[in-house]
Amino acid sequence: MGTLLIVGTVAFDAIETPFGKTDKILGGAATFIGLAASQFEVEAAIVSVVGEDMPKEYLNLLSAKNVDLSGLEIVKGGKTFFWKGKYHNDLNVRDTLVTELNTLADFKPVVPQKFKDADVVMLGNLHPSVQMSVIEQMVVQPKLIVLDTMNFWMDNALAELKHVMKHIDVITINDEEARQLTGEYALVKAAEEIQKMGPRFVVIKKGEHGALLFHKEHVFFAPALPLEEVFDPTGAGDTFAGGFAGYLAATDNISFNNMKRAVIHGSNLASFCVERFGTERMHTLTRDEINKRLHQFKALTQFEIELQ
Amino acid sequence: MGTLLIVGTVAFDAIETPFGKTDKILGGAATFIGLAASQFEVEAAIVSVVGEDMPKEYLNLLSAKNVDLSGLEIVKGGKTFFWKGKYHNDLNVRDTLVTELNTLADFKPVVPQKFKDADVVMLGNLHPSVQMSVIEQMVVQPKLIVLDTMNFWMDNALAELKHVMKHIDVITINDEEARQLTGEYALVKAAEEIQKMGPRFVVIKKGEHGALLFHKEHVFFAPALPLEEVFDPTGAGDTFAGGFAGYLAATDNISFNNMKRAVIHGSNLASFCVERFGTERMHTLTRDEINKRLHQFKALTQFEIELQ
Repeated sequence: MGTLLIVGTVAFDAIETPFGKTDKILGGAATFIGLAASQFEVEAAIVSVVGEDMPKEYLNLLSAKNVDLSGLEIVKGGKTFFWKGKYHNDLNVRDTLVTELNTLADFKPVVPQKFKDADVVMLGNLHPSVQMSVIEQMVVQPKLIVLDTMNFWMDNALAELKHVMKHIDVITINDEEARQLTGEYALVKAAEEIQKMGPRFVVIKKGEHGALLFHKEHVFFAPALPLEEVFDPTGAGDTFAGGFAGYLAATDNISFNNMKRAVIHGSNLASFCVERFGTERMHTLTRDEINKRLHQFKALTQFEIELQ
Repeated sequence: MGTLLIVGTVAFDAIETPFGKTDKILGGAATFIGLAASQFEVEAAIVSVVGEDMPKEYLNLLSAKNVDLSGLEIVKGGKTFFWKGKYHNDLNVRDTLVTELNTLADFKPVVPQKFKDADVVMLGNLHPSVQMSVIEQMVVQPKLIVLDTMNFWMDNALAELKHVMKHIDVITINDEEARQLTGEYALVKAAEEIQKMGPRFVVIKKGEHGALLFHKEHVFFAPALPLEEVFDPTGAGDTFAGGFAGYLAATDNISFNNMKRAVIHGSNLASFCVERFGTERMHTLTRDEINKRLHQFKALTQFEIELQ
């Protein structure tokens, strides 16, 4: 069983979509990553920070999936990071209504001793210097370091982002961010440029339009499963990343062919995540449901054609 | 060798993209469809109309590919349909600068006797009543009737469009148009609704985001090949349709599995079309180039995963 170290937010989200709205519910990148990764045979731990306002029963949802929380700091008297957002009818567009950093503002991740030799490190979207400080705490070079980031850091901490990128193996980034980071419109070219910045593998997430995996001259594409209903896209990207990293940690194989499978597993889990608000769908998800949908992925994409 | 009847425009296009601009060059839906279909073992004919201003050498480009032009009416003293458009930096967005219907305004397609029993009929984007008049001229029920249409007809001739839809087997339509036609945002639901309107098969074209094929409970997805450079998207949708219909006519097999191959062949040919202005790339395209890119399509999408 491989080990997976996850660093990222554990948070409160308040979400409004055309289909309904929630009060403060469990959210955060590390939460979604952990729940997705826990679907595989992997020993996973979350390093994060919350305030005393985070209900025990929310944390129990993670412990129940065997996600180690010994690296989760609970700040006495502190308040948990809070995000409130509203999605438009076109669910690809959302407005952020509230962002309260709270305890996240002073987050100094401390990697538990037991996970300083983790096989795979999944760095959720955080300030690139915070991501770097995690890498520096590892006592054994991880087999794979995966980093997620966003345009906010390109605008506000580009030098730090470029520095941490030199120390990672895989970056996950969306299409617009890949263009912003490189100035290249064609994703093939953008992925080439990003590989020159450090990561050997580039995953470009296109939301409902799927995800691309690039490595040297290799390209692989996984579509998003066409769904009857997308209820809430929150956490889909993190769920993808968690499935991707979790599968790779569990299988201990970073060949391109296995990375392809990891992309499919990530896309598969993300397709469940969007069916309910927040993390709700991930708590009840069964192995049978996962396998059934993998069959659908296969039917959706596989063909036989005679090549000369 | 199967027979394919193509009905659509043969036109002049003047195109401006961020990479350059053209004077009046050969364009039109039937032109792109014919050039794509001619890559397969198929006896293809175009029914269309042009004016006397259409240069003989443009028509020779089609004859050279063995596309039968006996159903192409040349109106004495008439002028050919002309479209002028300009693409934005985001090539998914374009402005139409000029549309001159000219001889197309009074187009009454006459199907040549020899093609009244064609195996496959490909109805390019035209007024739905004109498309219907072609179906009515067939003396043998075609094995497959494929219809392409656009939002303009939904706005201006919805009743006629719904009528012709009852007499076809496959509709090709883009994502926004599928939503407009049905009022359903999710493409899975839109495709279900469209199947109730007549066509047993629905192809939803998503441009650079690929194409979906729906039939009852079956769904298949083909991505667009990620390209280093998209030079001019004009004709990509028609090239897709021509490859799709041409392959089906050539193989005389309309099973879902063969339709999947047809979608791949259509996507493959469209990936070449966009590399040069207008039809330019299609004239020099070789069988070797096509096969090489089919291998790329396979590498891009095929994976092996253990399913339980």
